[in-house]
Amino acid sequence: NLKLLECRKITKKANALLILADDGGFEMGAYRNRICQTPNLDKLAKKSLIFNNAYTSVSSCSPSRSALLTGMPAHQTGMYGLHQGIHHFNSFDRIQSLPKTLKRNGVRTGIIGKKHVGPKSVYQFDYEQTEENNSILQVGRNITHIKLLAREFLNNTEPFFLYIAFHDPHRCGHTNPEYGEFCEKFGNGDTGMGTIPDWHPIYYQADQIDLPYFVPDTPKARKDMVAQYTTISRLDQGVGVILDELKKSGHLDDTLIIYSSDNGIPFPNGRTNAYDSGIAEPMFISSPVTTDRHNQVTYSLTSLLDIVPTLLDWYGIDSNEIKTPLTGKSLLPLLKNEPTNTTTEAVYVSHTIHEVTMYYPMRAIRTHRYKLIHNINYYAPFPIDQDFYLSLTFQDMLNRTRNHQPLNWFKTLRSYYERPEWELYDLKLDAGELNNLAGKPSYKKIFKELQEKLYNWQKETNDPWLCAPHSILEDAGEFQDNPQCMGLDNVF
Amino acid sequence: NLKLLECRKITKKANALLILADDGGFEMGAYRNRICQTPNLDKLAKKSLIFNNAYTSVSSCSPSRSALLTGMPAHQTGMYGLHQGIHHFNSFDRIQSLPKTLKRNGVRTGIIGKKHVGPKSVYQFDYEQTEENNSILQVGRNITHIKLLAREFLNNTEPFFLYIAFHDPHRCGHTNPEYGEFCEKFGNGDTGMGTIPDWHPIYYQADQIDLPYFVPDTPKARKDMVAQYTTISRLDQGVGVILDELKKSGHLDDTLIIYSSDNGIPFPNGRTNAYDSGIAEPMFISSPVTTDRHNQVTYSLTSLLDIVPTLLDWYGIDSNEIKTPLTGKSLLPLLKNEPTNTTTEAVYVSHTIHEVTMYYPMRAIRTHRYKLIHNINYYAPFPIDQDFYLSLTFQDMLNRTRNHQPLNWFKTLRSYYERPEWELYDLKLDAGELNNLAGKPSYKKIFKELQEKLYNWQKETNDPWLCAPHSILEDAGEFQDNPQCMGLDNVF
Ligand SMILES: [Ca+2]
Ligand SMILES: [Ca+2]
Ligand SMILES: [Mg+2]
Ligand SMILES: [Mg+2]
Repeated sequence: NLKLLECRKITKKANALLILADDGGFEMGAYRNRICQTPNLDKLAKKSLIFNNAYTSVSSCSPSRSALLTGMPAHQTGMYGLHQGIHHFNSFDRIQSLPKTLKRNGVRTGIIGKKHVGPKSVYQFDYEQTEENNSILQVGRNITHIKLLAREFLNNTEPFFLYIAFHDPHRCGHTNPEYGEFCEKFGNGDTGMGTIPDWHPIYYQADQIDLPYFVPDTPKARKDMVAQYTTISRLDQGVGVILDELKKSGHLDDTLIIYSSDNGIPFPNGRTNAYDSGIAEPMFISSPVTTDRHNQVTYSLTSLLDIVPTLLDWYGIDSNEIKTPLTGKSLLPLLKNEPTNTTTEAVYVSHTIHEVTMYYPMRAIRTHRYKLIHNINYYAPFPIDQDFYLSLTFQDMLNRTRNHQPLNWFKTLRSYYERPEWELYDLKLDAGELNNLAGKPSYKKIFKELQEKLYNWQKETNDPWLCAPHSILEDAGEFQDNPQCMGLDNVF
Repeated sequence: NLKLLECRKITKKANALLILADDGGFEMGAYRNRICQTPNLDKLAKKSLIFNNAYTSVSSCSPSRSALLTGMPAHQTGMYGLHQGIHHFNSFDRIQSLPKTLKRNGVRTGIIGKKHVGPKSVYQFDYEQTEENNSILQVGRNITHIKLLAREFLNNTEPFFLYIAFHDPHRCGHTNPEYGEFCEKFGNGDTGMGTIPDWHPIYYQADQIDLPYFVPDTPKARKDMVAQYTTISRLDQGVGVILDELKKSGHLDDTLIIYSSDNGIPFPNGRTNAYDSGIAEPMFISSPVTTDRHNQVTYSLTSLLDIVPTLLDWYGIDSNEIKTPLTGKSLLPLLKNEPTNTTTEAVYVSHTIHEVTMYYPMRAIRTHRYKLIHNINYYAPFPIDQDFYLSLTFQDMLNRTRNHQPLNWFKTLRSYYERPEWELYDLKLDAGELNNLAGKPSYKKIFKELQEKLYNWQKETNDPWLCAPHSILEDAGEFQDNPQCMGLDNVF
C-alpha cells in the first residue's frame, strides 16, 4: 500500500506550528521596542532563536505567501501579484507546495486565517479555515474564534503542520473603515464593535510611541501608528492563546514553532519596497530540542525562502522530493551553532506587481554589508497601493507636499517616486539607504559582483524578467537549451 | 424539467460558424491584395457583408479571444495578457462566456483549433479539440485533420455553434523554426515536413508582393512576408474545406458564418499596437437569410466586442442573460441596411500586457475620423515580444539601425519605442498615424471629447486602470458606491 509506505517516511515525532503576522514588523519588546506591549511574543522569543537578519523575498502579501509555502521566489511560482479580486494572480498548476509535499509524506496539514494564494489545487491543506470559507475578520482577527479552530485541529492525529495566518496587524481603513485604520476597534467591546473574549486591548499615547526611522514624525502618522499598536496587542494575545492551545494539546515538547511576518509594515518605504524597511522581518524559531539555542540571537542572513527547506529537514523529508531545486537552506543547523564564516551570505528579493495596476518589478540582493536593487520599470513613478494611499500617514504626506510644509521625513515624496534603475547602498555606513553608490567608480567592482550574483540567482530560479528591461529573453525553439538575453537597443 | 424548458428558448433553426485566423490580416483578394491568392476567402466574401471598418479591442491573442468569447474587453474579463506558460493569465471565475450561455440555452458548442484562454470552467465547449488535448499544429494548421474533426462535430444534433480557430498564419520561427518563419513548410510534402492532403501550397516571389505601408521595404521583410503568404494559402484552403464540410452537413442554409482574425499581423506597428495596423481586422458575415446583404461592403465601425451580441441575437437569446451589461451591439441589423447616420460610432481598445514582462497598458478610442490613444506606461520603451523579436523583419530593423543604414520604413526604431502619454490622430488626413495632434490648441475640444468618451467606456466596463497612471482608483470601503480617481501627485 503506497499510502502506508509514504507515511512511514516520518520516523521522528515531529510537528510544526508556523505563525505568520500580516504586515507585522518589529513593534514588540523582543526587538527592543520600548513602548509596544507584547508579553506573549516576548515570552516566545525567550524560548527561541531570535533572528536579527531575516528577510522576506518580496514585500507583498500573496507573492510572499506563495514563496513561504513553496520555497520559491514569486517569479518562479507565478504569483506575480495579489491573488484576490481583479488582481487574480495564481501559481502555476505544476508547483509543488509545502502542504502537498507534507501530505504526501503523511503529515496532517492545517491552515487557519488568511490564505491569499491559489489555485486551490496547489495550496491544499487537509484542514482549511480561511477567507475562502469564512469571514476573514473571524478567522484572521477574532483570536477567540482562532483559538477554538486551533483546538479542533490539534485534537487529532500527528504528525501535523499547523499554519496560523493572522490578518492582524494589517490595515483595514481601505475596506472596513468602520473598525478604524487597523481594525483596532474590531471586537473591542464598544457599541457595534463586538467582543473578543480573549482580547484585552492596550491603548497608547500618540506622543509616547517609538517611530521607526522611515515613518514621518507627524501627528497624523503617530495617530496611525497608535492604532497599529493596539491591533498588535490583539496579535500578541492571539499568539498567546495559540501557544496555550498547543501546550494543552500536549505537543509543546515535539513541535517546532516559527513566528514571522509576510512583508514590511504598511508605512512609506515599508510594504511593497525592497528597502530593508520593506523586507526585514521579525523571526523566532522555538525548537523543542533542549540542546538547541534558546533566547539567543542569530545575525546570519536568513530568507523566508529558507522556511520550506527548514520544515522539510524538520520532518525528515528529502528536499529532492520537490522537483524544482530550491535555493534556500535549512535553518536547523543555525539552531545548534552560529556559523563562523558568514561573509558569503546573501538574501534575494523578487517583487513584480502587488496590485495588478502597480507594475514595478524589482530584483535585489542583500549581503551583510551591501544592497543592490534593480528597478526594472524605473522609468515610471513608484506605485502606491489603494490601501496605503488612504492612510492618515500618506494623506498627510500628500497634503504637506501640496502645501509646501515640512514632511518631517527622511525623503521627499518626489525622491520616493523617482528611482534610478540601479540602487547600491553600503548598509554599514548608510542603514537608511539614502546614498546611492551605483555608478560611483570606486564601487564598480562591488557593483559588478553583486549584479552577477543577482543575475545568477534569477537565472537559477527561471526569472522571466532575467533580461528586462533592455534585453529580451529568448528561451524557446533554437534557444531552448541555450537561453539568451538579446539586446533591444531601447536606451537613448 | 428545467433543461427542456431552457432548450425550448431556441425557436428558430439557427446555427453559427465562427472562423478565426491567428494574426491574420488583409492579405487576400477580397481586401484587394493583388498578389496573395485566396480563392476560398474571396468566395466567402462574395456571399458576405464585407466589413471595411472592423477592429479588435486588443491586438494580443488571449486577451482578444477572451473578448471575442465574452463581449467584454480584456480588462473586464481578467485576461490581461497571454494565457500559456509563465504568462498564465486567466479570466475571473464569475465571467459568463458565450459557450456557457449558448449551452445553457440548448445550443451544442464546439471548438477546433487554438483556444488560448482559461480557466476551463469559464470557456467550456461541449466538443473541444484544442492545444489542451492535441498538438496545436495538428488542430490549428493541419487542415485535413481540422476537416475531419469538423465533420465529426457537424454529424450531430443542432442547433450548434462551431468555432474554428486556425493557428495559421501565425509565426512559428520562435518555437518551431524547423518549419520556417510562418510554419510555411509544415505539411508541404518536403522531406521531414509531412503532408497535408488538402493543402496545395502557393509560393510567391519576394519582389512581387504588396507590402502594407507599415512593413519596411527591405529584402528581409519581403522574404518574411512571402513565407506568411504561403501560410495564408493553407488558411485559405482550410476555410474552403470547412465550408465544404458545412455544405455536406446540409447546414449551409441555416448557418451564420463569421470570418475574422484575433489581432494585427506580426510585423512592426502591427500586433500589440493600438494603431490601425494593429487593430483593424478582416471581417465577413455570411448570412443564410436570402434578403440579407451579400457581396456588399459596410463602412460602419465594428468591434469584435460586437460578436457576442450578434450571436445572442442570432440564436434569439436575451443579452440580459449575461449578468454583466455588454457595450457591444448586434450586427444583424447591419446585414439588412447600412445605417444612415454613423457620426457617433466609436470602437474602443484595451491592451494591457501580452507577454507577462511586456507591461504597456493602452486604452484607445477610434471614431471614423479620429484616434485617441492613452499610453499608460508611456515612461517606458514600447515592448517587443519574443516571437516578433526573432523575425527576419525585426532583426533587420535592429541591424540596420545599429549600422546606420536606411530602414526603408515610415518610422525610426526610436520613434517606435518612445511614445508620449497621449496620441491623437486625424485619420482622414493622416491614415499612417504619424502626426500627433495631442496638445495642439486647435484640437483641444476634440481631444477632450474623445478623452471623456474613453473614460466613460472604461468606467462602464470596470477598468482597473481607469485612473492610471497619475491617480489611484479608490472603490472599496467608503468609496464602494462612489468610486473616485484620487491624485498621486507623481508628475514632475
Ligand atoms: Ca501582508
Ligand atoms: Ca493571434
Ligand atoms: Mg493555471
Ligand atoms: Mg480564478
